[in-house]
Amino acid sequence: MPYQLKKGFKLFALNSNQSLAKEMAEHLGCEVGKSSVTQFSDGEIQVNIEESVRGCDVYVVQSTSHPNNDHIMELLIMIDALKRASAKMINVVIPYYSYARQDRKARSREPITAKLIANLLEKSGATRVLTMDLHSPQVQGFFDIPVDHLIGIPTLSEYFEKKGLEDVVVVAPHNGAVGRARKMANLLNAPIALIDRRRPEPDVSEILNIIGNIEGKNAIIVDDLINTATTQTLAANALVEHGAKAVYACCTHAVLSQSAVEKIESSAIQELVITNTIEQTEEKRINKITMLSVAPLLAEAIDRIHNERAVSPLFE
Amino acid sequence: MPYQLKKGFKLFALNSNQSLAKEMAEHLGCEVGKSSVTQFSDGEIQVNIEESVRGCDVYVVQSTSHPNNDHIMELLIMIDALKRASAKMINVVIPYYSYARQDRKARSREPITAKLIANLLEKSGATRVLTMDLHSPQVQGFFDIPVDHLIGIPTLSEYFEKKGLEDVVVVAPHNGAVGRARKMANLLNAPIALIDRRRPEPDVSEILNIIGNIEGKNAIIVDDLINTATTQTLAANALVEHGAKAVYACCTHAVLSQSAVEKIESSAIQELVITNTIEQTEEKRINKITMLSVAPLLAEAIDRIHNERAVSPLFE
Amino acid sequence: MPYQLKKGFKLFALNSNQSLAKEMAEHLGCEVGKSSVTQFSDGEIQVNIEESVRGCDVYVVQSTSHPNNDHIMELLIMIDALKRASAKMINVVIPYYSYARQDRKARSREPITAKLIANLLEKSGATRVLTMDLHSPQVQGFFDIPVDHLIGIPTLSEYFEKKGLEDVVVVAPHNGAVGRARKMANLLNAPIALIDRRRPEPDVSEILNIIGNIEGKNAIIVDDLINTATTQTLAANALVEHGAKAVYACCTHAVLSQSAVEKIESSAIQELVITNTIEQTEEKRINKITMLSVAPLLAEAIDRIHNERAVSPLFE
Amino acid sequence: MPYQLKKGFKLFALNSNQSLAKEMAEHLGCEVGKSSVTQFSDGEIQVNIEESVRGCDVYVVQSTSHPNNDHIMELLIMIDALKRASAKMINVVIPYYSYARQDRKARSREPITAKLIANLLEKSGATRVLTMDLHSPQVQGFFDIPVDHLIGIPTLSEYFEKKGLEDVVVVAPHNGAVGRARKMANLLNAPIALIDRRRPEPDVSEILNIIGNIEGKNAIIVDDLINTATTQTLAANALVEHGAKAVYACCTHAVLSQSAVEKIESSAIQELVITNTIEQTEEKRINKITMLSVAPLLAEAIDRIHNERAVSPLFE
Amino acid sequence: MPYQLKKGFKLFALNSNQSLAKEMAEHLGCEVGKSSVTQFSDGEIQVNIEESVRGCDVYVVQSTSHPNNDHIMELLIMIDALKRASAKMINVVIPYYSYARQDRKARSREPITAKLIANLLEKSGATRVLTMDLHSPQVQGFFDIPVDHLIGIPTLSEYFEKKGLEDVVVVAPHNGAVGRARKMANLLNAPIALIDRRRPEPDVSEILNIIGNIEGKNAIIVDDLINTATTQTLAANALVEHGAKAVYACCTHAVLSQSAVEKIESSAIQELVITNTIEQTEEKRINKITMLSVAPLLAEAIDRIHNERAVSPLFE
Amino acid sequence: MPYQLKKGFKLFALNSNQSLAKEMAEHLGCEVGKSSVTQFSDGEIQVNIEESVRGCDVYVVQSTSHPNNDHIMELLIMIDALKRASAKMINVVIPYYSYARQDRKARSREPITAKLIANLLEKSGATRVLTMDLHSPQVQGFFDIPVDHLIGIPTLSEYFEKKGLEDVVVVAPHNGAVGRARKMANLLNAPIALIDRRRPEPDVSEILNIIGNIEGKNAIIVDDLINTATTQTLAANALVEHGAKAVYACCTHAVLSQSAVEKIESSAIQELVITNTIEQTEEKRINKITMLSVAPLLAEAIDRIHNERAVSPLFE
Repeated sequence: MPYQLKKGFKLFALNSNQSLAKEMAEHLGCEVGKSSVTQFSDGEIQVNIEESVRGCDVYVVQSTSHPNNDHIMELLIMIDALKRASAKMINVVIPYYSYARQDRKARSREPITAKLIANLLEKSGATRVLTMDLHSPQVQGFFDIPVDHLIGIPTLSEYFEKKGLEDVVVVAPHNGAVGRARKMANLLNAPIALIDRRRPEPDVSEILNIIGNIEGKNAIIVDDLINTATTQTLAANALVEHGAKAVYACCTHAVLSQSAVEKIESSAIQELVITNTIEQTEEKRINKITMLSVAPLLAEAIDRIHNERAVSPLFE
Repeated sequence: MPYQLKKGFKLFALNSNQSLAKEMAEHLGCEVGKSSVTQFSDGEIQVNIEESVRGCDVYVVQSTSHPNNDHIMELLIMIDALKRASAKMINVVIPYYSYARQDRKARSREPITAKLIANLLEKSGATRVLTMDLHSPQVQGFFDIPVDHLIGIPTLSEYFEKKGLEDVVVVAPHNGAVGRARKMANLLNAPIALIDRRRPEPDVSEILNIIGNIEGKNAIIVDDLINTATTQTLAANALVEHGAKAVYACCTHAVLSQSAVEKIESSAIQELVITNTIEQTEEKRINKITMLSVAPLLAEAIDRIHNERAVSPLFE
Repeated sequence: MPYQLKKGFKLFALNSNQSLAKEMAEHLGCEVGKSSVTQFSDGEIQVNIEESVRGCDVYVVQSTSHPNNDHIMELLIMIDALKRASAKMINVVIPYYSYARQDRKARSREPITAKLIANLLEKSGATRVLTMDLHSPQVQGFFDIPVDHLIGIPTLSEYFEKKGLEDVVVVAPHNGAVGRARKMANLLNAPIALIDRRRPEPDVSEILNIIGNIEGKNAIIVDDLINTATTQTLAANALVEHGAKAVYACCTHAVLSQSAVEKIESSAIQELVITNTIEQTEEKRINKITMLSVAPLLAEAIDRIHNERAVSPLFE
Repeated sequence: MPYQLKKGFKLFALNSNQSLAKEMAEHLGCEVGKSSVTQFSDGEIQVNIEESVRGCDVYVVQSTSHPNNDHIMELLIMIDALKRASAKMINVVIPYYSYARQDRKARSREPITAKLIANLLEKSGATRVLTMDLHSPQVQGFFDIPVDHLIGIPTLSEYFEKKGLEDVVVVAPHNGAVGRARKMANLLNAPIALIDRRRPEPDVSEILNIIGNIEGKNAIIVDDLINTATTQTLAANALVEHGAKAVYACCTHAVLSQSAVEKIESSAIQELVITNTIEQTEEKRINKITMLSVAPLLAEAIDRIHNERAVSPLFE
Repeated sequence: MPYQLKKGFKLFALNSNQSLAKEMAEHLGCEVGKSSVTQFSDGEIQVNIEESVRGCDVYVVQSTSHPNNDHIMELLIMIDALKRASAKMINVVIPYYSYARQDRKARSREPITAKLIANLLEKSGATRVLTMDLHSPQVQGFFDIPVDHLIGIPTLSEYFEKKGLEDVVVVAPHNGAVGRARKMANLLNAPIALIDRRRPEPDVSEILNIIGNIEGKNAIIVDDLINTATTQTLAANALVEHGAKAVYACCTHAVLSQSAVEKIESSAIQELVITNTIEQTEEKRINKITMLSVAPLLAEAIDRIHNERAVSPLFE
Repeated sequence: MPYQLKKGFKLFALNSNQSLAKEMAEHLGCEVGKSSVTQFSDGEIQVNIEESVRGCDVYVVQSTSHPNNDHIMELLIMIDALKRASAKMINVVIPYYSYARQDRKARSREPITAKLIANLLEKSGATRVLTMDLHSPQVQGFFDIPVDHLIGIPTLSEYFEKKGLEDVVVVAPHNGAVGRARKMANLLNAPIALIDRRRPEPDVSEILNIIGNIEGKNAIIVDDLINTATTQTLAANALVEHGAKAVYACCTHAVLSQSAVEKIESSAIQELVITNTIEQTEEKRINKITMLSVAPLLAEAIDRIHNERAVSPLFE
């Protein structure tokens, strides 16, 4: 293990993604700290930290994935406990930061929940955030504490590069993904295309337009997260219909709610590449889905933060 | 309706206790404001406020009962939305404030979750709290915004007084309830008794001691909340064994988790009197349980707050 | 004048855009409040408010356009003065919010200046922000005070609709503008296209790719702001080269720095439509440029805020 | 001396309890830092710190006992001075935290002074609190900085255990002391009893009821603090009247105001055991009163905090 | 009474200067609100507010004069109680703001107590400060809430003007008073002089130098406060020795500690003119001392604040 | 080099005074950190920090001299970037703190800009301020973070002492400078005089009065800053007219705006001694002006702060 952890380093994992935390601990050459979350019969939870954290540089791993509100409250309560137990630094490691799409008032009287969560984390006592692929990078600015923001595109791109696909086009499955598509396309030295959706008149069904040249190409659909997979599978099918040679898809955060896995299974997507920021149950781990681990990346980032070396080489 | 609501008064209800909110609205002579909580397929919730709240004096009714974390997050997100929508006053009405027993560090590295919740509410933008029978009255001091704290003892006492029981003793089912027992005993002009529990040696089972005279009396067990009902039913059975004539029980917050209702059904408790701070499913509404409504009390308090008259007559 | 201003309403204008403020005052039927900004010989500025604001609902109009830092400091100092002079509400009206592109850490050790400005405004004492077309809508979430966020797309679209252009395509001149292009395209019931830029190898010049069909069409390039106009004029020229019938351009914020006006003059852009969120000097007001006023929109928003009516009809 | 103090450790004492501080310093193997409190002729006080504290881990010992307001202001001013003099950590050691009974709104328009004091300490710049036997443990939650809360019951219990009393009953002299009585009873493996007070009708004098069996037993009255000693001496006398063999009393905080010492002297209390959290004048140190020192306990806690070892062994 | 007080106006007085508060109430045409400060036997104080303040615009009159710390704590506790009792505005009226000379770090490790007090007032919940003749006007900037700062010079000057003294010189009794002397001299159209003190060598007694022409003139010594009166009486004696015709003295805040009154009585000061910002005991009210009332000034300021009219005419 | 800098020490310089920063770095034996300020064509600036600062003890040198607002914004943006880049300590070194004369409300509705700047610095994330000769020392109290305040008087006095002038009088050129004059006079063991200005009637020109004896003496005019030099040159000329033997002037902060240098050149001032807290262009460096460096003083202070030794020996 090349990592040098100082006395007082502690890594804890809450309930959302213990397997990722364990893998990170292996990379770092440490144990996951002893702690547990008890649920009482009335639904209240209690966080128990079973070793001293006084003066420690603590890292708490918790994705705020489903059940989101429980995972958020677990994290906030853990932070409160660490603060009162005199931890020196409380670094929250949130591989998947949910509610990130509620990042602006799109309609009147909407909350900005992604900002609310940031406020709650700071108020509870978090002193730093380490996260990955925020839905909008602007969410970094919702915090006044330092945020180290890692990205999944290099890991995903490297996978496709090793695969040796030729004649690639990177496809944004909707307007919001064009920036990410361009970033991946830069790494793969490829052009981009865009799926544009438009409803010509009210009560008429949406038209799905492919903007850009995809004929005869290996299309890679890229997104930050895949939820119900409707957008991505519709895009994949349209790409094939319009002459794409093969369609791949990838994302950092595989939410995969409802019948997402079934849709993917029956879609034109040949392979879906995801990362393990969100823990997946066995039944979601079908053959079509390849899961890459971000544990090495997160461990490297933690080591750099802990030893006060620049994290920037990991995302530039 | 004697209540005079000014322009700009709005009462909203989140998911925890819509029936109480509706009853309060009837007392106040207003409608419950149009709002809803949408849950997306990935578990994220969105709060939708469907009427303008700009410049309004808003009251949001939400007990933080089971599922606690969802109800808390609903409330925080609602407050964020109201703040950003320019509500003038954001009064949160929390008939049952959960996590209130996590109000101090009893063991090392414990969170003080009741304080954390207070911090989160203030940080989100709440400008006032109206609540009932906090587990410790000190939780009021966890806030720096005004807290109006109502108590259920008068409502419960009045019920027993009307019942015309004679020779009453008010029983604290554990040490922490002695203060409440004394308060109720004052209203009923009765003595008190105390159930003391003690484990003579480690690995020996707990001894349950009745301190005070209960023989031949109508015992009323009083507590702020009843959760699994173990404490209260054991107390009731012991009271009968030691010669109590009849045993009643009462509490403000009827959490009634797990098999609480079965335990009550099969216990020596003749009647359990609760209030509706927590909404009860049909199967919990057995004959032995009498539910009193706190809607008139809460409505009166809101009217006084809204019209800037003293709330103190309601709790002194 | 249909607007009903209550006693205590005051509208002030700082140095950045007095003509817009005057126009707004005319729409609102009020005078611009008496105030001035003095610059001392050493460069320090002093804000002088020449009428009482005690208890008033004050609106301060200031774009933070060039010279940006002076305009920002003027605004912060004005807010401090208003706060200390006991103004009741301090609403800052920022038609153009500069530094908004510094809204995330794109590279290591970058500031998030747009958040910094938000923090400074709140710390100084601003109680609300009214602004237009933030570069990212997420900047709303940089604030914890209410933000009313207006958009220029409807005003710009209406102009083009009245013009009666046929066979329109809305063009995003870069990846970040696709969302806006889609919004305008919805209003004009048109398809979109995208200019994608890509550097095939280091040290090779950038290739400019048109994605989507623009042949024989009236192309409207849309963006939130035009600074040096390089991006937009290169796009316009490429569109014409690839067969566009005519090219129009539009934006809300016309920064027009350096030789922007010359570039526009000599480009393939037939007409550039802008708004007056930023005050323009005479020499920038060439024939090719059409300036629409947002004064009616801002005045309407202020009236709605002041009279506590929903602002949402203005942006939904 | 087993304690290892690092460079930068400083212990200061203000005016309330210099003898305790000196004793703590002896245990810790350090000097009390040079500082003084000057009172000017007009009543203003000035705190003078006569050695550098830059970068130091500072501990300030001050009970907020009589004269309470002076002792509180001394402490706040000292904290301000330490903060501005660049102390790294400002740990306030408050053996007796006064105003702790004003911890909730019991009647309308009451302050919550215990919370106010917490707010004032945090605002001034305190970074940690070390205290003992807060009147309600919930006062810990009034702080957002870490609080290390020690308890006096083990020290007091150990004294009575060594004394070898047989047939002990621990007596709560009022409702609020039942919890403490149970804790001491656990350590002494004894039952508890409770003095219940009740006014049968208005204008009738209070009846004092002994609940529980005390006949022929050695009663130990326990409380967190003894102020005028009325409650405790009335209780003692009643216990003897109802057949107690002997009555002892104990508390952590011996406020002993007014004629408390005379009352104790002439009461049925055989021995009163107190600690030195509050400094006692000579005339209060009568034979009946045994004073135990908490200096070893506080010194041990400080050493553990300073060396970042768990404090929990001291209170679990 | 010309003053128009709205519903919800309340004026309270704490212990420091009840006679001034009563006089202000008479000018305002209102009653002093019912409240009291109870001191318990252990020295803790409790503030009792005996009428509802919910939604009220409250003014609390309290000089922080001797006993300073008690008066400060009374005020902070009162503010906490008002905040929790839902007062709408909490205006603290501090005719004499003590600790104002501790307004900077003059030597190392000094507190800045005047700032600390400002922080404490804001943290407790004060929403505005009305005060008079702060030792340095910069103390206004210690607050982020509005401060209305009145000055005593016009009242004092008017008195001397009416007296009809000829050939006046206004004398600063030390360096720090030159600004005030110039202000009074402007109103009296007079020159100024300055008493300069200097110690030629260590261990040699201070030389008192009169700078400026005072021969044959009526000298008026002016200062913001007179504490022990040493400075002022030494100055007066020196002025007479150097040929002044007569010496008068004046100040806003008459602290008059220790033997100040005796010193004045036996000094060359012919008449000392003070105001009633600090309440004076009978024995301090000697013939030589003339006390002017600032009640009309404070009442006028409160009326202007309450009715949202500019306060500036009172100090410009 | 006697200075011992620990790993993690970094000194950065922004645009206002790079030569001073370089000189400081030489004294400290370190390099100035790599950073730059880019100005975009639209006037926005971007701060680029080109080396890692994670965990570092950072010092940023920036006078807020002309162009003041740009220099302030540069500093605030730099602090934001450092905070987000995880710097451990952000010490801002502000040799000249501008806007310091706006330190109180002298007239109605004035801002207190010096406090505003303090608020902005703290809000951005500054953790300490090192500055020199604040216009009022009370500005220290505008901060809640530690301020180390150095003074120029010893450096200036030492220069005059070495010069060997005899029969010196130190002259305050206006009322506000009397305190500084006394301080310098103490070091030079000299008397003081004061220039008093007074307008006998409105519309009559100001009379300039010399108070104190200056005949035949070497007068040294002292001030904290010289801006337009009108005050100082008028004073100098008057002193010569009234018989001063020679007139020298000095100040710490040489703002020298407008035609200040010409006025000095043509005035009776024989020599003006300044420091380099503000960078001077070549044309301002005339023979009459002697510039002393404060780099050694600032370097010494930084070393003491960095190594946690008392800074007080530098200003006592």
